[in-house]
Amino acid sequence: MTGTAIGIGVGPGDPELMTLKGARILATVPVVAYPAPETGDSLARRIAAAHLPPSATEIAIRMPLSSNRFPVESVYDRAADEISGHLANGRDVAILCEGDPFFYGSFMYLFARLAEHWPVDVVPGVSSLTACAAVSGKPLAALNDVLTVLPATLPDDVLRERLAVTDAAAIIKVGRHLPRVRAVLDDLGLAGHAEYIEHATMADEKHSPLSELEDAKAPYFSMILVHHRGAAWA
Amino acid sequence: MTGTAIGIGVGPGDPELMTLKGARILATVPVVAYPAPETGDSLARRIAAAHLPPSATEIAIRMPLSSNRFPVESVYDRAADEISGHLANGRDVAILCEGDPFFYGSFMYLFARLAEHWPVDVVPGVSSLTACAAVSGKPLAALNDVLTVLPATLPDDVLRERLAVTDAAAIIKVGRHLPRVRAVLDDLGLAGHAEYIEHATMADEKHSPLSELEDAKAPYFSMILVHHRGAAWA
Repeated sequence: MTGTAIGIGVGPGDPELMTLKGARILATVPVVAYPAPETGDSLARRIAAAHLPPSATEIAIRMPLSSNRFPVESVYDRAADEISGHLANGRDVAILCEGDPFFYGSFMYLFARLAEHWPVDVVPGVSSLTACAAVSGKPLAALNDVLTVLPATLPDDVLRERLAVTDAAAIIKVGRHLPRVRAVLDDLGLAGHAEYIEHATMADEKHSPLSELEDAKAPYFSMILVHHRGAAWA
Repeated sequence: MTGTAIGIGVGPGDPELMTLKGARILATVPVVAYPAPETGDSLARRIAAAHLPPSATEIAIRMPLSSNRFPVESVYDRAADEISGHLANGRDVAILCEGDPFFYGSFMYLFARLAEHWPVDVVPGVSSLTACAAVSGKPLAALNDVLTVLPATLPDDVLRERLAVTDAAAIIKVGRHLPRVRAVLDDLGLAGHAEYIEHATMADEKHSPLSELEDAKAPYFSMILVHHRGAAWA
């Protein structure tokens, strides 16, 4: 009997936004892997900490600060090898994922390496998308609305084209792209309908209408939600 | 002291996909409201049943089978009045929502009526979007992908235009629109990259590549997920 890799969405940040299923599985799993920075704490582990049994073997998948393609690939290769060793020996491995495993997550890299060889289950989690909507206090989309999720890393013209034709949009990974995104929304006359949210449901959560935001830079975990009509029910 | 209305996302169907926060709040709340059909059980209540205290006052918001605009509006007016009565008397009211409250949910109707007058909190839940991706066993979107959520109720030409320019798409509320959606995907050469999922994470869950689906009709809780490149990591 081989083990199963289980991608567990631990939600957007508030440990209470984990699912009952995620918490139950974590309480008994023998091996737990999670993404982590080169040095220091893993956010995903911190969210799930209350449910990790002290006896679990832990695998911190540490990402080098440099974003060159080669080292990142090799980090995932090594992590997949280590996880495969446990699976081959019949041990299930939980892989913690911030938000939801299949919604813009780095879990994809492990999934692509593991799913060919081993059974992989996914426990969905609360995504940053709906967490940010909850924090902003406005419905994301309703009825016949088209909702578009746009990484802020896309070029200005792509952002502009997509924003022009959607009813609602979530611009994710805002980070250093904030001034560019703001300029595009201004151009389209949408800045007044945009809400800015960072670190949704975490202790340092922050949100405001985009028009009232004075910062020129945003953290990676930030999002801008826009609705063409101003509100989903308008 | 007035009460607070709390929209709680109970997740896509599996009761274990409720959040710890949703379960905790439900265990102590004095009043619980939920959408229900004209006769019979409420799905949202069924998902949350294990956490409802027997002492809670329950408000079933029963939707008439007829979908005329007028009666639906008056059903929400009456429900908002009943909920407001409890809030005015200092009692918190949990409002159960399938999936996530702000992701294409009928909670919007109550939110629009209550939020002007009372404090309203939202506890986000696992949405059908990520639940269907988990069931299909394929990442929804990654990296620079544009992800578009499209209600199947949209006209063919809108579906075609939006599907042509997105990397990934989730077509929701497929229902009786299945043949139309399938024809549009065929036209665009995307049918081979489409996964069909119904009743994700429920007892009667069903999923298959769209190309292998023989049914001409789908239930309301069904979704088609498409990725232009076939996979989020391709």
